[in-house]
Formats: sequence, C-alpha cells, structure tokens
Amino acid sequence: MVTLDMIKDAQNVIAKDVRRTDLFLAANISEENEIYLKTENLQVTGSFKARGSAYKISSLTDEEKAKGIIACSAGNHAQGVARAAQKNNIKCTICMPISAPVTKVAATQNYGAEAVLVKDTFDDAYAKAVQLQKETGATFVHPFNDEYVIAGQGTIGIEILEQLPEADAVIAAIGGGGLLSGVAVAVKSINPNCKVYGVQAENAAAMYNSFKEKKLLPTKSSDTFADGIAVKAPGDITFDLINKYVDDIATVSEDEIAAAILMLLEKQKVVSEGAGAASVAAAYFNKFNLNGKKVVCIVSGGNIDVSILNRVIARGLIMSGRKTSITVALADKPGMLNKACGIIGDLGGNILEVYHSNSDPNMPITSCFVRFLIETRNSAHAKQIKDSFVANGIEIKDGAI
Amino acid sequence: MVTLDMIKDAQNVIAKDVRRTDLFLAANISEENEIYLKTENLQVTGSFKARGSAYKISSLTDEEKAKGIIACSAGNHAQGVARAAQKNNIKCTICMPISAPVTKVAATQNYGAEAVLVKDTFDDAYAKAVQLQKETGATFVHPFNDEYVIAGQGTIGIEILEQLPEADAVIAAIGGGGLLSGVAVAVKSINPNCKVYGVQAENAAAMYNSFKEKKLLPTKSSDTFADGIAVKAPGDITFDLINKYVDDIATVSEDEIAAAILMLLEKQKVVSEGAGAASVAAAYFNKFNLNGKKVVCIVSGGNIDVSILNRVIARGLIMSGRKTSITVALADKPGMLNKACGIIGDLGGNILEVYHSNSDPNMPITSCFVRFLIETRNSAHAKQIKDSFVANGIEIKDGAI
Repeated sequence: MVTLDMIKDAQNVIAKDVRRTDLFLAANISEENEIYLKTENLQVTGSFKARGSAYKISSLTDEEKAKGIIACSAGNHAQGVARAAQKNNIKCTICMPISAPVTKVAATQNYGAEAVLVKDTFDDAYAKAVQLQKETGATFVHPFNDEYVIAGQGTIGIEILEQLPEADAVIAAIGGGGLLSGVAVAVKSINPNCKVYGVQAENAAAMYNSFKEKKLLPTKSSDTFADGIAVKAPGDITFDLINKYVDDIATVSEDEIAAAILMLLEKQKVVSEGAGAASVAAAYFNKFNLNGKKVVCIVSGGNIDVSILNRVIARGLIMSGRKTSITVALADKPGMLNKACGIIGDLGGNILEVYHSNSDPNMPITSCFVRFLIETRNSAHAKQIKDSFVANGIEIKDGAI
Repeated sequence: MVTLDMIKDAQNVIAKDVRRTDLFLAANISEENEIYLKTENLQVTGSFKARGSAYKISSLTDEEKAKGIIACSAGNHAQGVARAAQKNNIKCTICMPISAPVTKVAATQNYGAEAVLVKDTFDDAYAKAVQLQKETGATFVHPFNDEYVIAGQGTIGIEILEQLPEADAVIAAIGGGGLLSGVAVAVKSINPNCKVYGVQAENAAAMYNSFKEKKLLPTKSSDTFADGIAVKAPGDITFDLINKYVDDIATVSEDEIAAAILMLLEKQKVVSEGAGAASVAAAYFNKFNLNGKKVVCIVSGGNIDVSILNRVIARGLIMSGRKTSITVALADKPGMLNKACGIIGDLGGNILEVYHSNSDPNMPITSCFVRFLIETRNSAHAKQIKDSFVANGIEIKDGAI
C-alpha cells in the first residue's frame, strides 16, 4: 500500500539521483488565479519519470539487480528507467516500437540501455518485453501500475507542500495515473484541505471516464499529440488511489494544450511537452473553478519533438494574429502586385511568402489570385491591412487558393 | 566603488523582489566539460535586469522616489526597471524606440510604467529620456554604467558560488558590461581561483575590442540578432571593472548563438534569447579551453520573440537534417509526381510542402522541376532519399528553383 511514509522513504532514497525541481509563480498568465509551476520538465531526463524508476530500482534485491531490468516505452519512461539503471550499474533493456522518434531511442541508448526496436505497435513492443522478461528473469518495471513507481512520483507532492505550504490545489496530468496517484497520497496525507485534481486529453480520457463511472474503463483510441498521456488502459492500483484521494478530473482539448505550451514557452521561458502543459491548460482555462486560489500545476515533462514545437508555435502565431495569411484577387496586369505589396509595407507588415496563381478555374480570365503570408503585430494589425486592401479596391479572397 | 560588501548588501535588499534562480548541470550537451546553467532566463521579467533595477531603486531617497524614475530601453532593462518601480510604488517612465516589439511595450506597460514611444532610433529615445529627466527631475536609471545596477547584477555571482562552490569558471555575456562586471567582482572576491570570462557577439564586439586594446573603443555597428547585447558603446565603470577582474573575453558567431539556443531548448527545456545563449555557445564551442572543468554559464535572459525562435528552430532542423529540401527534375507526364512521392513515402519521409514548376526558362520543354520539403530523421536519412531518387533515374536539381 502506498503511504506517506513510503513516499518519505522514496524521497530520502532518490535524493542523490534526481533534482529537487524549482517551483515558481507563473506571473502574468492568469488574472483569475495564481498559477505556480512545479517544473518537472527541468527534471533529469526531461520528465518526472526519473523519480519512480530510481525508487523502484532501490527496492530490488542484489539477486534481482544482477538479473537486470526491462521495460517497454516509446518515451519518457524509457529514459527514466535507463538513467536509473545506469546510475546503479544495472543491465537495462527497453523495448520500443520501431516508430519511436530517433531522438528518444538515442537518448535511451545514451543512458547505456539496450534498445530493442519492435515492429509495429506499442502493444507488440509490450509483448516482446513480457517475453524477454520471462526468458531472462529480469525485473519488469511498469510505467505506472507499481507501488514503488507510484511512491517515487509521489515525492513531487511532498516537495510541492514544502515549497508552497499554502497551496490551495495541485493539478497533474494523467496517462496511466502513476504521477497523480502518488502526488494525491502525499498531498492529502499532509494537508487534506489542499485539493488534488487530475487532467486528461479529451481524446485519451480513459481515467476520466473510469473516475466518473466509478469503474475501470479502457478506451479504444488515444489520439492526442500529448503522447506522454496517450494511455488506453489505466492501472487498477492507480485507479483505486485516484478514486480515494483525488477531488475531480477534467479534460482539455488539443488546442487548449497547444495554447498552454505556447504560453509556457513565451511567458515562462520553459519548454513543455503536451502532457506537461495539460495541467496548466486546465488551470488557465479554469476547468475546476479555482478563482483567487493558489494553484500548483505540475509541468510533468519537456520532451517534445522540436518539429512539433515549431508547429505549435506556428499555429499560435496565426491564432494570435502575429502571422496572417491574406489572399486577394488582382487584375492580371503590370503594377498590381507592386500596389498590393505597397499596401502591406506601408502598414509595417513583413511579407514572408507570396503565392501567385492565374490558373484557377473559378476566377475571371483577366484576374489572378495572390496569397501573402505576412508577419503582423496582432489581429488588429492584420485587420488594418485587410481594410486597406478593401479601401484600395482590392478584393479579399481568403480560402480561394 | 563596487565591492563584495556592496553586492552582499544588494543581495539582502533585493531578496524579497527577485528569484534565487536555479543552477543545474546541463547533462548530455558536452563531452569536453561540465556545463552548468544559472537560469536567469527564469528570473522575474525574463532576465537578470530585475536585480540591478531593484537595488538601484532601494538606494534612492524618499525625495528622489517621489520624483519618479526614468529609463531608456527597447527590451529587458525596460521590464526590469518597470517592475522594480511598481514593487516600490514609484512613478516610472520608459522611453522606447517606436520600433520596439509590441509584446515588450505591452509587458512594460503591464508593470505600470508609462511607455513613451519615440521616433526613430534608440539614440532618439535616449535623447528624449535625457530631456524628460531634466524637465521632471526624475532619476535616470542607466542600464549598466551605474554602481548600484552593477552591484545588483553581481548578486548572481554570490549565488553561483553558494550553489556550486567548486565552480572552475563562470561565463557571462557582455552588452554594456553591467552583468559581467558585477559578477566578476563577486566571484573574484570570494574565490580568486575561479576564472571569470566574458563573451560577445562577433558582430557587436565593442567590449571585446576595448579589452584587447586596453582602451574604451565603441563600435559603429551592432548587427546581431542577440539584441540584448547589441551595445555600441560600453560603459567606463564597467570597462574598468572588467579590465581589473575578468580573465578573458571571446566572441561567438550568429550561428553558434543559434545552435546554443536550440540546444538549450531541445536538451535543457529552457528558452533563451540570443544574449542568454551566448555564454553557452562559448562553453560548447570551447572558446576558453575549459576541458574537464566545471563551467557555469549565466543564461541571462529568455525574452526572445517567438517568431525569431521559430526561425532558429527551422534553421536548426535543416542544419541537422531533420527538414530537407530536395528539388528534382521530372519528365512532364502523368505518373511522375506519384513516382517521386512514392520514393519519399517508402523511405519514411514525411512530405510537408510541394512546389511544382513547369515554367522555368532553364529547363527542357518536356520536363518540370518539383521541390519537396520533407521531414526526415537526420542527414543520413535525407541522403538515403536522395540516393533513391538517383537510383530510380530521377535527377536532383537542388537550387534550381
């Protein structure tokens, strides 16, 4: 049974291996509540997973350690387990789906683990890990449904109340539930008045559904870009703890997660992955009615692929009016493109891309479409440019090409 | 005169207003040395400037406070001064060049300051600030050439040696020199054996030139995207302190700074601006021969425009082979584009953009050029796709369109 004493023991045991991550006020992002960030994205390996793995390994006998450990993961758990094994000089095998990002495979190997790449899906990789475990007698380190792993993650809860004793609420994201269940045991045992909330991506809401229906309900799909919490079947141990200790669970949309990632990047100067930003999304979009409260959001990880991050930024720039796409219809004669560019330049817009087409079947034979991608200051600035086009007799045709 | 005692006083005075930022090992980024980050990008206002401003304001008499303060800045200093004034209920006016980013003007206003937007350049804004200072009798807060400001920034030096007493070297970026001179006084006073180094952008190297020539030499241009250190004329107070206490100064290129920003983002999960990443660039590209040493890099700020950040990421993705542009010549007949796309898809490349042109005057009338932008795993993967094009009789024409 996971207890506060067990979590305190974990705290002592893993102190030498993991960072006591900073907790600070995320100023200027919300007027409704005070949002504090527990920055587990700045944890070693880039996520909280380093904690649970370290404590799990400490629980092994010398004989078990000699046989090594094995795990299955495409992401943060792989790195957490590999690093903990390396620190303890234990042989480590990680089964990963062959589709795992090269950077994550390399990071796992850099911690000295053997990465076994398995075709095709995560489930296949899991089956392979189970098979290897039987063959070798190594200890299987489950990503969440394990009391030692849960207790390790729970150390975050103790740290939060040490760093901000007056916290009114703590929010953590849920994949399998290891993080939230550990934190909930710690926080509720220390201060029952402090609320503990969970958050899931609405596209991968197994624990949300299970919590609301009071029984374990796996989902068929888990189609979220927050891959760290894309879990179809939560654990029974974590489910029981969450049922007992957690006040409520909410879901957030993909767009809300993306907005939170951008806000953390731009205002708080930290990189978070989708799973890491979900807690902040829940606080920012006030899913739990926490007006005026001190809310600690666990930013659980920062291992986001930079290509994805670039898309999140690009989308955020367009949504906030700092990049604007405008398509106009121009008479197909000399000087018209110059005129259009002049309108943009005079208003301080910076042209990034121009696409010019005169072969669209839907338009008059004497005109053409031109699409501009423009760096603008904000939505009002973008509107100013559009208005100026219209005032100069140039028709806006957004969506035409 | 700036002394360790003065910096210790600053530390006591500003403790309630600023964060004691975290210092941690940036694992896995260098095999040559141990790079530690002092994360002043996570400081309130997003840069170390909050420290100097807070201490400067504490030095004012009640009469001076009543007359308010004034400053000139397009960036971090503006926010640092505005926040310190707000905390102390002092009227604050900031002259900013009209070209300052909207987000920075808004951030300054959000701290309760009056932002006076001045046409056209920074020098014009400075002249306006001097004029307003004379009219109002407000205190002018210089961004670097002021002993209180220097002592405030120096508190970072004390913190570093408290957090990592065994540090072998500390590296800080130099614009006007306020940060480095304060840190140098603190570090050398506590531990003369700890090296202190400065770094500048090679395109804005006034203090570097001055240090090497042993006399104050302003530069005519300061054309770096690290706008936080784009200073043409360093201060005489900071120059004297740097001459006395600093071991050496080096320069880094724009590409080295960009690489450091991407590395901090991807591996350490923190956002840094160009000026903030310069110290890491110097350590990573080993400008000071620090093999095997414990090197603390002050990541001085994180206020980078996300559009710029997007471009840094995009460039980094292309340089590391994770985005690849390939232009091919195709016979202009049905099925050819399908064949080309098949080659890319079969090798696991993800097509992001296609540009198809059959109107280039330099090519045969029966063929066309197609440019693909492809998400690839790394440079080897990109080469694999190119080789497959060639093996299938398709000619690579990079640069053709």
